Parts: sequence; C-alpha cells; structure tokens
Amino acid sequence: MMFDVKSVEEAFEIIKENFAGYNLEQELVYLQSALGRIASKDVCANEDMPPFNRSSVDGYCVVASDTFGASESMPAQLELAGEVKMGEKPDFIIKRGKSAYVPTGGQLPEGADSMVMMEYSEDFGDGDIFLNKPAAPGNHVVFKGDDVKEGNVVIKKGCRLRAQDIAMLAGLGYEKVEVFKKLKIGIISTGDEVIEIKDTPQGAQIRDINTYSVMALSQMMGMEAVSFGIVKDIYKDIENKVKESLEECDITVVSGGSSVGTKDVTVKVIESLGKPGVLLHGIAVKPGKPTIVGKAKGKAVIGLPGHPASAFMIFKVFVSKLAKWMEGETENIIPFVEAEMDMNYPSNNGREEYLAVSLEETESGYISSPVFGKSGMISLMTRADGYVHISRGSEGLNKGQKVKVNLF
Amino acid sequence: MMFDVKSVEEAFEIIKENFAGYNLEQELVYLQSALGRIASKDVCANEDMPPFNRSSVDGYCVVASDTFGASESMPAQLELAGEVKMGEKPDFIIKRGKSAYVPTGGQLPEGADSMVMMEYSEDFGDGDIFLNKPAAPGNHVVFKGDDVKEGNVVIKKGCRLRAQDIAMLAGLGYEKVEVFKKLKIGIISTGDEVIEIKDTPQGAQIRDINTYSVMALSQMMGMEAVSFGIVKDIYKDIENKVKESLEECDITVVSGGSSVGTKDVTVKVIESLGKPGVLLHGIAVKPGKPTIVGKAKGKAVIGLPGHPASAFMIFKVFVSKLAKWMEGETENIIPFVEAEMDMNYPSNNGREEYLAVSLEETESGYISSPVFGKSGMISLMTRADGYVHISRGSEGLNKGQKVKVNLF
Repeated sequence: MMFDVKSVEEAFEIIKENFAGYNLEQELVYLQSALGRIASKDVCANEDMPPFNRSSVDGYCVVASDTFGASESMPAQLELAGEVKMGEKPDFIIKRGKSAYVPTGGQLPEGADSMVMMEYSEDFGDGDIFLNKPAAPGNHVVFKGDDVKEGNVVIKKGCRLRAQDIAMLAGLGYEKVEVFKKLKIGIISTGDEVIEIKDTPQGAQIRDINTYSVMALSQMMGMEAVSFGIVKDIYKDIENKVKESLEECDITVVSGGSSVGTKDVTVKVIESLGKPGVLLHGIAVKPGKPTIVGKAKGKAVIGLPGHPASAFMIFKVFVSKLAKWMEGETENIIPFVEAEMDMNYPSNNGREEYLAVSLEETESGYISSPVFGKSGMISLMTRADGYVHISRGSEGLNKGQKVKVNLF
Repeated sequence: MMFDVKSVEEAFEIIKENFAGYNLEQELVYLQSALGRIASKDVCANEDMPPFNRSSVDGYCVVASDTFGASESMPAQLELAGEVKMGEKPDFIIKRGKSAYVPTGGQLPEGADSMVMMEYSEDFGDGDIFLNKPAAPGNHVVFKGDDVKEGNVVIKKGCRLRAQDIAMLAGLGYEKVEVFKKLKIGIISTGDEVIEIKDTPQGAQIRDINTYSVMALSQMMGMEAVSFGIVKDIYKDIENKVKESLEECDITVVSGGSSVGTKDVTVKVIESLGKPGVLLHGIAVKPGKPTIVGKAKGKAVIGLPGHPASAFMIFKVFVSKLAKWMEGETENIIPFVEAEMDMNYPSNNGREEYLAVSLEETESGYISSPVFGKSGMISLMTRADGYVHISRGSEGLNKGQKVKVNLF
C-alpha cells in the first residue's frame, strides 16, 4: 500500500473539503435538552424584548425634565398619579408634574421616560412625592425592544447553544429549537490480542482501551457513541463490522493494532466500500503518523493509530475537527492556558508535533513540563493536563518560552 | 431585614466553610457513563500495566549488547529463535546471539531487553537476521509495570473523570467506577408577573427565563436540574416549594423578583427552615449585589438576583463554586483567553466586578470589548463570549491592558 504522508495542513484541507457541509438531519428539541446542541438554522425574535418599557429599579417614574436640578436641598415635588403593580399594564398616564411608584421589572406608564430610585425619594403620605436626584431621559428604563428587536437574529445557524442562548429563546417564548441531530460515531476495536475489559488477559492479551477512550472523547464533544465491539484481524470480519457501522453512523472509527499488516487491512476494507475510499494514509505528525481517513457512502471512516496515547491525540486534533465540520459548527473561541516551558524541548523537523504537557501553577503563572514516557503508555495522557502544538518549521521549544496549552 | 453586605472573599469563605465536605452519596457507574463524574475515592492499579514486556514497534527483539556497533556495513548477525504472535506468550527464550520477530504490542520473550525496528533488518530467509542498527537496552520496549505499577493510585478522589482517566480504568479492567452522585439542584421561579415560556404575556407579564438559564448552567456543570415551576410572591407558597425542593435536592435556587419586598420573602422563608438559616445577604459585587446564601437541613438555599444577566453571572461565579465544594471536586485548572482591552473601563471602587466582554480574534491576538447594555437585558450575556474579573482594589481596566477572559 502506498503510504503517501500528508502534512497537517493538507490533512485538514482534505478533511474539510470532503466533510464540511455533511448533510446532517435536523430535529426539534425542547430547551431543557438543547444545551450544547448546534442550531441548524437562524432563529429570529418574533417580538420585541422587553415587550414594554420596563423599570430596572424600585422607584418612581417621571418625565425626566421634571427632575432637572433636583437635589436634597431642593427636591422635585411631583403629584402621585398611581402605583404600578408587577405584571400589570398601568391604567393611567404620566404627564408633566406627575409621578408613580414602579417596582423593578414593572411597566412604565405612558408618558414616563425615566426612573428615580426609591432611595432618592421621600413620601410624606400627602399625595406628593419628593425626589432629590435628577433623572436623565432613559435612566433605569429598558425601553420596548431595547434588548432585542422583533426580527433580529438571536441564534445563528451553526452556533453551539450556550446557557444564555437558551435563556434568550425562553424569553422569546420558544419552547423548542431546531438543531442538527447528534453525530453518531461507531467504534470498532480490532486486534487478535484485544479482549473485553472485564476479562483477565491470558498470555500477552491486552484489554480494549481504545473503545472506552474514543467513546468518552466522543461524548465530550456531544456525539452519540456506539460500540461495535472487538473484531479479530480478519479482513472479512472487519469489513462486515465497518459496513454495519456505516449503515448507522456518520463516523466510523477503526482502532487497533498499529502493525503494518493490520493497517493494510483497514485500508483495504475502506477501499472496498466504494469511491472515493481512502483519502489519506499517513499524516506528518507526532504522535499519530499511521492515521487513515477515508470516505464511503458520504460518511467518514477513520483508522486510528494503535497506541492509545496516539489514538487519543489524533482524535483530539483531527477527529474533533472532522466532527465540527460535519456538524456545521461555526468556528469557536478555544480557551487555553498560557504557560512557560520549564525545559528545552527539541523539535521534530518536518513533522508537526502535539506535545502532551503537565501544568503547575506558581505565583508567576503556569509552568508547563513535557510528559515523558514510552510510546504506547496510557499514563502519558493521564499525567498530562493538555497539549502544546509545535509547528513543523519550529526549532522546538526553549526553556522559559511562553506556550499556549490546550487543556484536555 | 439587615442587609449586611459581604466582600467576595468573605462570601466564598462562608460558602466553603458551610458546604465543603457536604455528604454526597456515592454510586457505582459504568465507564460508558463516567465521563465528567467525580471520583468518590482513590482507585489503585490492581495489576502492573503493561502486564508483560511489550514491544512498541514491529521488529526484532534482541539482547542489546549483541547489537552494539552494528551498522549498515557491519550488521549484527543473529539466529532467529522464533516468531512472537500477537496476544500470545512466547514459548521460547532469547539468549545472546539470538533474535525473534515481535509485532507492535507483542510480548518480548524472556531474555530480550530491546527491539530493533523492522526497517533496520534484513532477512535472507536462511534462519539468520541481519540488523544494521544498534539498540540500547530498553529501546522500543515498555517493560512490565512501566506504565503503571500495581498499587499505584491512578485516579484520585475528587478528580473529575476525563477521557484518559476512563481509558486508564478500562486498561486496568475496571468496568465501573465509584463516583459521587450528581448534585441535584431545584429551581423555583418566583414573581406575580412571571409566566410559563409557552404563554403569551398579557399586560406587563414576563416569561420565566431564569428557570431555563439556571437549568442549562447546572447541566453544564454536570448537575441534575429539577424545575419546581413558577410560584406567586406569596410567603406560604414559596415556603412550601422550598420545603419540597429541600426534600429532594442538594441545592435550591430561588430566582425571581429583585424588588426589596420579594427578597425579604425569600430571606424569611430561609430563616423559617431552621438553623443556621441565612448565611449571607448581599455581596459587594457587580452585578448581583442582592444575592442570598442560606443553609437548612445541611443543604444550600440560594436567592439569586432577579435580573437574568445578574442571576447568570452570580451562578457562574458563586453557585458553580458552591457546587464544586459540595461535590468535593479538587481544584482544576481553568482555561481562559488572554485578550487586550479595546477601551478604558473605569472600576467600581469597593465592589468587585465581573465584566461581560465580547472577543474578537485579530492577527496580534484577541481583543476584548465590554458588553454594554442596561441592567436586566438578556442580550448582555448572549453578546458576550466571557467575563473578566476586576478586583476590588483595582482602578479599572486600561485600553491595551492584557486581561484574562473566562469563557462562558
């Protein structure tokens, strides 16, 4: 099999080209279960918010100009025209010289354009109110439509719904929102030596770690993960499982042996499923060179490297990106931790690297240390807090250098 | 009611003192649903990982010293003693002068201490193998227990389980893990003017936004949220609902009217439930001053400020911290985005502030802008990407100043 290694940028480009705009179905979900889902279309406000001029304090509504120049020694004296009750539309209007009590959240009577807070008022019970602070027009008032105007787009297609987006939809009276269905990811573990985690290894058998790490990583991204179990390294068995997963899932991940023979089987299986088949086989990246990306029936089939830590990093960097493209998620801001390297780390020329690091907080900020260990160790990842991207052209990282750490 | 405003540090201290070490029950969950859960006790490795000396490459196992000095012009010539099959324990041993093929992940035969990669070998089919690269002892071998030694703590009590922690547990053969039960949070919305989101406001009614935002914020933190619906501003009704929630939930959140009268009712209800009652009423923070924290039957009762954006921020800053303490979660690294302020922002002396900001990515990094709007607007939060903490002593933020933005 040709092993035509692509650069990281080329790999991203191939993935984007093939899977961005993937046709994911839509569904309507209740707001209670909409958190983290991706809006499948723009949502517009169907009314003004607030739908009336609303006070944001407890106090007295006024015509602002009536209070100009008011002070403690010379309060503005206004006639009380009524009292506004929460939730009720006032049945009186405010003309010059008049005022009325309005609670926080209450509706301003017609004519009033501002509020003076309770604490700047004195009520002697004689039907007048004394206000010892001037109000500028608009003071402590949210006017009709100030928050959102009818017709405004409040949720953009492709946005991952946050708590505040859900709050906004609730405020506008939407009980449900249209989102893309969750991406379904099928996980196939291969290898003659791989056994169920509940079993005790005999000889040199090894438990099926990748199914569980891929499942958790997928859940973390909001995908629905389906395990198709463990298959022996037999062409026909792998082919059948991949076909089964392709029926049901948007992404199929084949993880397992990283020996040359096993990889060849995965490649052959992907090629057998129809065009375009294997899109790339090998990425110039450390760890994770023997990664396979294929496409069949419009869906993605990924061959992950066999070492759990490599599979983990490739998932974090490439599969998560693939998923975002398939889901049509618009680019988001990715938080990170800025840290200082505690040692020199020489680069791997010609190959980008994603270096697992641990972080320690000190008074002067975070310190990051590369996590060392042998290829294939799981503790490489459990000891790490995140990873640093080292670009291909880089000469490596220097002690004291500031780096951006993406947390796991 | 006394309104004895506490500083932010005092508030955190009071919350920690009263709720850290909260007695949350434990449960056993399958790894498939353990992501994000908090380990309720240390987990130790019950065996060495790997349980045998494992090759991390395809190649030939050797006694390292047999290869010292080997080169292309002078390869080491070794006798093939056999071939190791994946998953099987080799039934032969390697003495000096011998070698054997071992696939990636295969077990090294006894006696071998290192591997030479396939690509540095030549096999002429005559029973000998020629290796043209020397191996140092340990080369490409993960020795028994190198990854994790039997008895090592692999999961610490209080850690929030990440994908790699689950991978580790899978590798060690744990199907289930002991975690704290999810915190249950009961949400009560109060206010005569508040209506169900599906209803159309009449007069100056307003839809129940806070139930949905608090629910989503709680879900985001891995809590189980239960809505107790909307209650009128009637003492007995609120008391009954709070009692109902207290029975079932670890945290009860009363959100609603921010008018003085409503807050008083919440305070009275909390006081009526038994000692210690209200722990704090009022935090010197912007937004969110009228926050109430109480304790009854050992559980937390929170009165959130009425404005949705204030309630949101108080939840983000205080309730999430409360939840972490109740769950016994050990401190985690919080990622952020470093950004540069695009304008001066004067501080609020004597009061800490959590300023909502939007972010824009430029070539020189992120630029953060304060999100302006009137108190009570929901769009204050939907337009924001995160928030900046401005400490009490600060003179505010200057244009060009670097700030840490916590993403929402």
